[in-house]
Amino acid sequence: MGGRPQTRQVHVGDVALGGGAPVIVQSMLSAPPDDAQANLAQIDRLADAGCEVVRMAIPSKKHLPVFGEVCEASPLPVVADVHFDAAIALGAIEAGAAKLRINPGNIGGLEATLPILEAAHHAGIPIRIGVNAGSLDDAYAARADLTLPEKLAASAADYVDFFEANGFFDIVVSAKAHDVMTTVETYRLLANLLPHTPLHIGVTEAGTTFQGLIKSASGLGILLAEGIGDTLRISLTDEPEAEVRAAWTLLAALNLRRRLPELISCPTCGRCQVNLMALAREVESRLAALNKPVKVAVMGCVVNGPGEAADADIGVACGKGSGVVFRHGTIVRKVAESDIVNALMEELENL
Amino acid sequence: MGGRPQTRQVHVGDVALGGGAPVIVQSMLSAPPDDAQANLAQIDRLADAGCEVVRMAIPSKKHLPVFGEVCEASPLPVVADVHFDAAIALGAIEAGAAKLRINPGNIGGLEATLPILEAAHHAGIPIRIGVNAGSLDDAYAARADLTLPEKLAASAADYVDFFEANGFFDIVVSAKAHDVMTTVETYRLLANLLPHTPLHIGVTEAGTTFQGLIKSASGLGILLAEGIGDTLRISLTDEPEAEVRAAWTLLAALNLRRRLPELISCPTCGRCQVNLMALAREVESRLAALNKPVKVAVMGCVVNGPGEAADADIGVACGKGSGVVFRHGTIVRKVAESDIVNALMEELENL
Repeated sequence: MGGRPQTRQVHVGDVALGGGAPVIVQSMLSAPPDDAQANLAQIDRLADAGCEVVRMAIPSKKHLPVFGEVCEASPLPVVADVHFDAAIALGAIEAGAAKLRINPGNIGGLEATLPILEAAHHAGIPIRIGVNAGSLDDAYAARADLTLPEKLAASAADYVDFFEANGFFDIVVSAKAHDVMTTVETYRLLANLLPHTPLHIGVTEAGTTFQGLIKSASGLGILLAEGIGDTLRISLTDEPEAEVRAAWTLLAALNLRRRLPELISCPTCGRCQVNLMALAREVESRLAALNKPVKVAVMGCVVNGPGEAADADIGVACGKGSGVVFRHGTIVRKVAESDIVNALMEELENL
Repeated sequence: MGGRPQTRQVHVGDVALGGGAPVIVQSMLSAPPDDAQANLAQIDRLADAGCEVVRMAIPSKKHLPVFGEVCEASPLPVVADVHFDAAIALGAIEAGAAKLRINPGNIGGLEATLPILEAAHHAGIPIRIGVNAGSLDDAYAARADLTLPEKLAASAADYVDFFEANGFFDIVVSAKAHDVMTTVETYRLLANLLPHTPLHIGVTEAGTTFQGLIKSASGLGILLAEGIGDTLRISLTDEPEAEVRAAWTLLAALNLRRRLPELISCPTCGRCQVNLMALAREVESRLAALNKPVKVAVMGCVVNGPGEAADADIGVACGKGSGVVFRHGTIVRKVAESDIVNALMEELENL
């Protein structure tokens, strides 16, 4: 679960978000915006990976027909990502967007959002207000007395006030930064300022996979552990499927939601007498096909297993040229090193 | 910085740990324990990567001479990792260990530690008490009224009490689990139970790189953001250099310490008109050689850069077939796509 239960629940297509619903996993399409088939193929891969809501950028009006085609055929609700041009936002709603993401700071000011609010209300879809450090409202950007998190949070809260004052309440808010602690501090402020608004969390421009996983997992981990965050996107400069796999891995690590198998594997040390790295990677790749949240342990020696991994569904503790397979901490068989992976998979099937 | 300043500072070789010292980066050797040259070569690679303290397993007495050779020639302080046999611990101290890591739960009971305490005290080296779920003291393991974090923390605190009652105070404590929230909860309890003892934090058996980074960064990120942790090891089923790079990346993400360049790169989306993934990876690999904590931004479009990355030392915002290079948010030149990487590197050198 996760998130703050007192937030107002919104619906993105048939996906409930906020109000105590499970933390929803999102990603964003990177296929060319003029190629419906490429985007739909990417959506299929994302849906297989466990993505629940997908976002698509609409760079210009001419891309609206393709966006409409994608919305029509997509198995996942599609969010329209619109910048600079309120007319595109209106077109996206008409084309079937399940949600809109706009930044009032770069779409022509608050007045320009009024027709968007009206159209979204009429269509019954929520709007995410997405604020970021790069397009802060000028009035706040100039304030030397505020920290960046204070500026971001206050700016987002102002937009929410304006939307609500105009009768629009189906709101989700994000205020991402690429700096992890700026992101954390901003969302903590938002959680206080906007107790009833679902929050979309993420660290933006987190970088390529290695650095991006660390920045996202630490920042979003801190927030989710504090109950902050109703939906997340882990932004990586990588294929969007990796973002989804990372999001599920993080939610499982925090005991919020489970979808994927979990591999418990020790770092090797001088005690290890098998090629553990190769073994762990092979088990990992065999597990990848398994859409079950099982825990599998691959341990290099008897110091760490089976005791250390007693909560694993299945595991192996390796010795010299062999391995002892255990189930829930109880040894079930001893096999040669070359049979370890097959033995683990057999035991998993028998579970 | 980081850690709880009121902890008693210990010294591992010439590295200060606890008492307000910076959070120290550790890793563990995986070379065969009977090959001094292989271990020393690994230590050199680890030192280059920024490792500050390194641990070596000593599986049996016959490995003590090699351990001694490694201690003698190592540029980093070497911690002896000993299980099951108090005699090996004594041998390791004699061989020149800069610190000892033992688990009183598997070394023959508390009484067996007394000669170790005496020898460590005489040698002037600290001891890490490393407790883990796999080798909990029987008395605690059987207690149905306690959670696993409570058992781990109480068991570690008992050992500390025993050490201190016997006049030994140069103590570091760890109590790792492979479950992230168990680890977090255990260290929160330890921070309360042991206000004066430096803590070595880590999520154990975190798995291969992708999952391991997420589990470690979320768990240790939560702890470090709460001020808990005086030294860390990120355990990965990968080369130890990756553990060190991950640790530095995490410390930088949390604004605790900086050593490496940071790449701010956006996830691509439909707006992007260059091959951003390839570009980001090339910049990343060129930056890897640079041991300077510069911030470099590689942005796919004008929506996100330069505004979003105004705090980057150097950055590029890409358009169709070209890029605009900016320095601290101010545009300095426009270059063709093929020249982007070289232009960034030139600007970095001119910084």
